[in-house]
Amino acid sequence: MAQKHRKGRAARQTEHQAETVHMPYIRRGFSPLSLLNEEGLDLIERNADTILQETGMEFRGDPEALELFRNAGADVQGERVRFDRGMCRSIIQATAPRDYIQCARNPDNNIHIGGGDVSFSPVGGPAFVHDLDRGRRYASSDDFHDLVKLAHMLPSLHAIGAPCEYLEAPIPERHLHSIFAQLYYSDKPIHGSSRSAVAATDTLNMTRIVMGDDFVDNNYCLFGGINTNSPLVLDDTMMAAAKTYARANQPVLVSAYLLAGAMGPMGLAGALAQQLAETLGSLALLQLFRPGVPCLMGTFVGAVSMKSGAPVYGTPESMLGIPIAAELARRLGVPASCAGGAVTSSKIPDAQAATESAITLHTTFFAGVNYVSHAAGWLEGGLTAGYEKMILDGDLCSALQWFTKPLDLSENGQAMDAVREVGPGSHFMGCEHTQHNFKTAFWQSDIADSNTFEQWSAEGQNDAAQRANKIWKSMLANYEVPAMDPGIREALEAYRDRRQKEINQQT
Amino acid sequence: MAQKHRKGRAARQTEHQAETVHMPYIRRGFSPLSLLNEEGLDLIERNADTILQETGMEFRGDPEALELFRNAGADVQGERVRFDRGMCRSIIQATAPRDYIQCARNPDNNIHIGGGDVSFSPVGGPAFVHDLDRGRRYASSDDFHDLVKLAHMLPSLHAIGAPCEYLEAPIPERHLHSIFAQLYYSDKPIHGSSRSAVAATDTLNMTRIVMGDDFVDNNYCLFGGINTNSPLVLDDTMMAAAKTYARANQPVLVSAYLLAGAMGPMGLAGALAQQLAETLGSLALLQLFRPGVPCLMGTFVGAVSMKSGAPVYGTPESMLGIPIAAELARRLGVPASCAGGAVTSSKIPDAQAATESAITLHTTFFAGVNYVSHAAGWLEGGLTAGYEKMILDGDLCSALQWFTKPLDLSENGQAMDAVREVGPGSHFMGCEHTQHNFKTAFWQSDIADSNTFEQWSAEGQNDAAQRANKIWKSMLANYEVPAMDPGIREALEAYRDRRQKEINQQT
Repeated sequence: MAQKHRKGRAARQTEHQAETVHMPYIRRGFSPLSLLNEEGLDLIERNADTILQETGMEFRGDPEALELFRNAGADVQGERVRFDRGMCRSIIQATAPRDYIQCARNPDNNIHIGGGDVSFSPVGGPAFVHDLDRGRRYASSDDFHDLVKLAHMLPSLHAIGAPCEYLEAPIPERHLHSIFAQLYYSDKPIHGSSRSAVAATDTLNMTRIVMGDDFVDNNYCLFGGINTNSPLVLDDTMMAAAKTYARANQPVLVSAYLLAGAMGPMGLAGALAQQLAETLGSLALLQLFRPGVPCLMGTFVGAVSMKSGAPVYGTPESMLGIPIAAELARRLGVPASCAGGAVTSSKIPDAQAATESAITLHTTFFAGVNYVSHAAGWLEGGLTAGYEKMILDGDLCSALQWFTKPLDLSENGQAMDAVREVGPGSHFMGCEHTQHNFKTAFWQSDIADSNTFEQWSAEGQNDAAQRANKIWKSMLANYEVPAMDPGIREALEAYRDRRQKEINQQT
Repeated sequence: MAQKHRKGRAARQTEHQAETVHMPYIRRGFSPLSLLNEEGLDLIERNADTILQETGMEFRGDPEALELFRNAGADVQGERVRFDRGMCRSIIQATAPRDYIQCARNPDNNIHIGGGDVSFSPVGGPAFVHDLDRGRRYASSDDFHDLVKLAHMLPSLHAIGAPCEYLEAPIPERHLHSIFAQLYYSDKPIHGSSRSAVAATDTLNMTRIVMGDDFVDNNYCLFGGINTNSPLVLDDTMMAAAKTYARANQPVLVSAYLLAGAMGPMGLAGALAQQLAETLGSLALLQLFRPGVPCLMGTFVGAVSMKSGAPVYGTPESMLGIPIAAELARRLGVPASCAGGAVTSSKIPDAQAATESAITLHTTFFAGVNYVSHAAGWLEGGLTAGYEKMILDGDLCSALQWFTKPLDLSENGQAMDAVREVGPGSHFMGCEHTQHNFKTAFWQSDIADSNTFEQWSAEGQNDAAQRANKIWKSMLANYEVPAMDPGIREALEAYRDRRQKEINQQT
């Protein structure tokens, strides 16, 4: 397991740990779903190689990247780079780690990325937010903070991100507020900004203030997430951010966000080959920038409705793409990520949202994906972050976590004495084994109402979204900032404010 | 494959096939999920044997059954029967078929039960129905007919059942109306009544009228479904119905409907062992009644809320129980069934209903269950059948069906020419490959709204349940009775009316 040398952390440990209960990352105890045989997987890999060889990929706006590729033996014509068959794979497999530890400022929240382990993170990036009281609206800074707090408090989420845009802040300074909020309002692992090299540098500097220079130099302390610009382009903005993170030896998650029929061909095998080609090219570049930097192979294959041009989510094709892409990542030897957590096209937390999210998240989980983005809160094709949706999805992530507990085969789990005691035709309601186990034996949903129709009616006939509405309000009312050394907080604020001024003077 | 000799069918073929499009049963192209290792499965099987050996099982009200068990070597004390280790398994494995063909009156709707194949059937048995317009109410005969019609029209459902109680009819004659409606309003395989031996006999007779004596004698033409009376009882009513079907060589589906903490121990390993014991005892009896009759091993492990005593559905424990039970059925060598299709505790078709149903149905599917009961329409722990819920679940069953289509690895599926043609930085919207494939490449939901927020708003901001409401109304408005020879219809009605009179004279 790739792990930097650890030191310098103790001095920065805060006195009080946050009281919020977190569920550890999931250790999946079963083999992932395998939906395509060796022959099919070989074919997709061969086609990816053919795409990289014949068509190649464009890497825009970075002469150094082109020089690195040229030196590695690629055919570089302008910004178009073509690769010999197997070349990208060889570069990646020579140095990229199979797994690593992603650190949080609270070490209890560190997560192991790779192998049989699974982590969930909340929705990232929507411009809109939705809740039952206020409807759909542009995201405000209060929304950003509230959603970070909810993601922090939800025990089934293992990392934080930017759960919506921080629209009040102009784009050049927006990342300062996003990173401050992630680092201050939560103590789970954070997502760095990939808006520019400047934003990435600020993210790194702010993380250094909180976790210490030494610690950041020797550990993996944030996710740098980028998308290819499908088809077959890595643009200058994304490349600059990724390069900054890679050079600082911080993990980069590369996702080809591909809607078949728009950014990829209208055929799943073709879309997966193109996605693999883009990931291979991008991950090879990361390893050239900084050999050994952890990098995750992300997948997202959706479709576009040919009636309306709108993206379609939670369909069998997206579901089918996930286990195949995860298997391609395992064959490549890097952790698998998926941007298709709890995705949906629905505008509200209704049955459509729940179905599309549940089947996609469920498939992601059984596919053996190691890091699941957008696992809670996503609505409307990622344009909207939902308060109630965050709670509903968090509940499902919690159920999936329980699902992986190995079957209890202890004497108590086998319960043979209870069966002997009760015998035919009786019941187990009052028996000692039931009394002893009923509080802990089974998972309890925070959302589901299993009361009688009469009880449910007496309580107002609320639907699941209405119950989730009460839950997020109660959570926010009880939120407590996880402990942070006051000196660190001041330094963090000072950095944010200074950089804000500098940026505004420049623009 | 067990298959009776076919003859006499052609004469009864109707001239006009129904125009409704049906999706064939699903041929799963991947290995089912395996969640428990050999050692764990062995342990559960050993414990089931111990239960059958030490505690045994009660078979009530049938001296012949006890005699058959005694002759087979079991220890019979009163109605309690204890078995040597492995005895039930040996009886079953000697004669029970691994798979068979379940026939419908329309042979296009025949389904193969067993192996890697999967079929879905609608909810069975609720006393209440629910729709958005009329709310929750007692089921009427109109509801019964409407729900049979919807299940018939939903292309993703492969069989019919009694989707709710036929409450207007007194219990002794109720089965006559249920079987008539299933046979007349649909031409998919039907579920027989298991209310009594009389009801089973009437079911058989009515099926003979429609499908012909010869055909019924030589084919499998209905499902006889029974539940054990957990813990460890097979009661006289269920046994009498099962015996009637078995003696007529018609398949019987045996489900232990087991809520852990009530009818089984509060520990999944224990509940699964007890369930296996009950199934082994019951299936052995069926094979003694009629060696070679197809029998399905059903599973349903739910939990009871210890706060309210109410059943809880869609939990990780139920989900975990399904793949393990399916694997136990495969080891036993009989088709696996699951009564936990689209189950939920929710009273309405909301996000709770959708999530619980989706994760359970999804797990059932990945578990390799061959025949899934209650796969559409279930609400409120099975007390209520929902109109909108039927449509929502049918849509999900359709997505799962599509999911199993093997990945298209043809030249067209690989789409390499499209990738070459489009190249970096362009898009696939207008390319020939997209134009050629967009109508057929991807599954289309009947329910999901993937339009923009603005379009969706202009259309009234309907949620998924409201869209489902429009769909079932439109379906019922367009329903057509599948063709039936008028002479057969008259004979069927005459039988129903005559038996109704006879039963009422007796009671």
